[in-house]
Order: sequence, then C-alpha cells, then structure tokens
Amino acid sequence: MVPAQLNIITLGSHDLGKLREFYSALGWEIAAEAEDFCAFQLRGALLALFPWDKLAADGNARAAPAQAGMRGFSLAIVVDRPDDVDEIIAEVERAGGRVSKPPTSPSEFEGRHAYFADPEENYWEVVYSAAEGPMRQALRRAIGEAAASST
Amino acid sequence: MVPAQLNIITLGSHDLGKLREFYSALGWEIAAEAEDFCAFQLRGALLALFPWDKLAADGNARAAPAQAGMRGFSLAIVVDRPDDVDEIIAEVERAGGRVSKPPTSPSEFEGRHAYFADPEENYWEVVYSAAEGPMRQALRRAIGEAAASST
Repeated sequence: MVPAQLNIITLGSHDLGKLREFYSALGWEIAAEAEDFCAFQLRGALLALFPWDKLAADGNARAAPAQAGMRGFSLAIVVDRPDDVDEIIAEVERAGGRVSKPPTSPSEFEGRHAYFADPEENYWEVVYSAAEGPMRQALRRAIGEAAASST
Repeated sequence: MVPAQLNIITLGSHDLGKLREFYSALGWEIAAEAEDFCAFQLRGALLALFPWDKLAADGNARAAPAQAGMRGFSLAIVVDRPDDVDEIIAEVERAGGRVSKPPTSPSEFEGRHAYFADPEENYWEVVYSAAEGPMRQALRRAIGEAAASST
C-alpha cells in the first residue's frame, strides 16, 4: 500500500532568494537551508524551495516553461474563526504578498476565505468553513484532534 | 502572524474522474466528495481535486494553460527505510502510475528516492534519507515525534 502521506511540498523557484524572503516575512521559520535549497517548517509538512529546472531534473521530468496564472494547484491554510481570514490577509499584505481575492463570505459554502499569491504566483487560500461535515472531520483527522480542539 | 500551516493541497484537474481513480487505486481513502470535488485523507493534510479552471476562478486567478512537464512543484512522501521506496514504487506501478525516476541511491544525498507522476503529471517523490540533520529534525517536528518513532 502506498502510504497516504504528504510530508514535503517543494516549490520550483525562478528566484529563490526572493521567494525565501517572502515566506520569511510571513514569520515562517527556516528549518534547513543549503546553497540552492531552503525548507520552512510548517505544521504537518515542510515547504521547500528549490530551483525550478533542478526540481524537474531531480524527478527526470521535463520542466514546463514559466507561465503566468495558476498552474493547477493551490495550498490552503484552514483557520478556526472567520476573523482569522481577515487578520491573516492583513499580515500577508504587510509582508508584501499579493492578495488575489480579498476576504469574502462566498455563496458556495458557509464560511469565509481569501487567496494570496507569493512572488512567483503560487497560490494560497486562507479559509474558514462554518459547516460541520465530512471535510471538517477529515481535516480534524489529518491535523489531529489536539489541533482541532483549539477552536 | 501568518500561521505556518499546510492543511489542504488542491490539484487543478482536467479529468477529475481519471485522477480520482488513480489515487483511489493507490489505496487512498476519500474523505469528502461532491459533484466536481473530491478530497483524499492524507496524514497531515488533505489532497483535494477540483477542476483546473474552477480552482483558478475560485482564487480570482487566471488559469495557466495546460502544459506538459513539471509545473513547478512536487509532493514528497518520506519513508523510514530504503526498501520502502522500492516497495511503494512497485505498488504505484501496479496502480497504473508512471514512474519517471526508478528507485535510485543518488549521489546528492545518502539515501534512496524515486519519482512518479499521476495521470495529469503531478509529481510525487518517495524518499528515504539516511542522514541525520536539520531536514530530518524538521520533518520530525512537522509530523510529530509519534510518527518518527515508528522507524
């Protein structure tokens, strides 16, 4: 069986110094670093930065050319209160992040969310969901009950 | 402060049914599902699938056009033993996954790794690192000592 785990997400970077600076400005802690590599400590996983072409080469893959727009993935930070979305987005803006979607209470679900992009257009969603349901239960399982009980 | 968390990674999909089938074939459990949405339970985070264009629209972002090659990110499953890499890659192949880099003991670090791609060319690394060091310590902190003690 293939273990259902996600331990590291590595972002292929065109300007690693700039990306490193942005995530540091969010207050995120660097856990490991080398000449062209850098990993931030997140709860549940590591966020690593590595040059775009080298990352593809490491996987014996062709590197897709750089392109504007969302490249088929987003990363989400799930928060406990609707106000957290607004507060976090304000922090992101202070850190120089580009907010693509300001905090909003969408029609699609009961809650609040917003999106920001890092300097190389990797997208993060900050999301609060009011609804009890399978997603919320799954998140509790994923992050552990201890974290969920902080609500 | 922006919480250093990664709770959900959402992959923008062009053929959600096919991608859903692939991850199910890995033995991964679906935690939540809707008409054009599906989330798998991973340890530490959820892996969600959502249509490529809708995901970009959700973030008020332009969707980059579909493109062959690695699109600037990879996801890693960190394992406890070198043999785990080979065993897991064999499972991935049985599930119809494309192995882009067969299990190998690279020169860059003391350990073993391999890469596979899902049907829409999202890349996963399966990696064992023998070295004690900051990365390994950071991973332990991220996944919790309980998980690390299973080595």
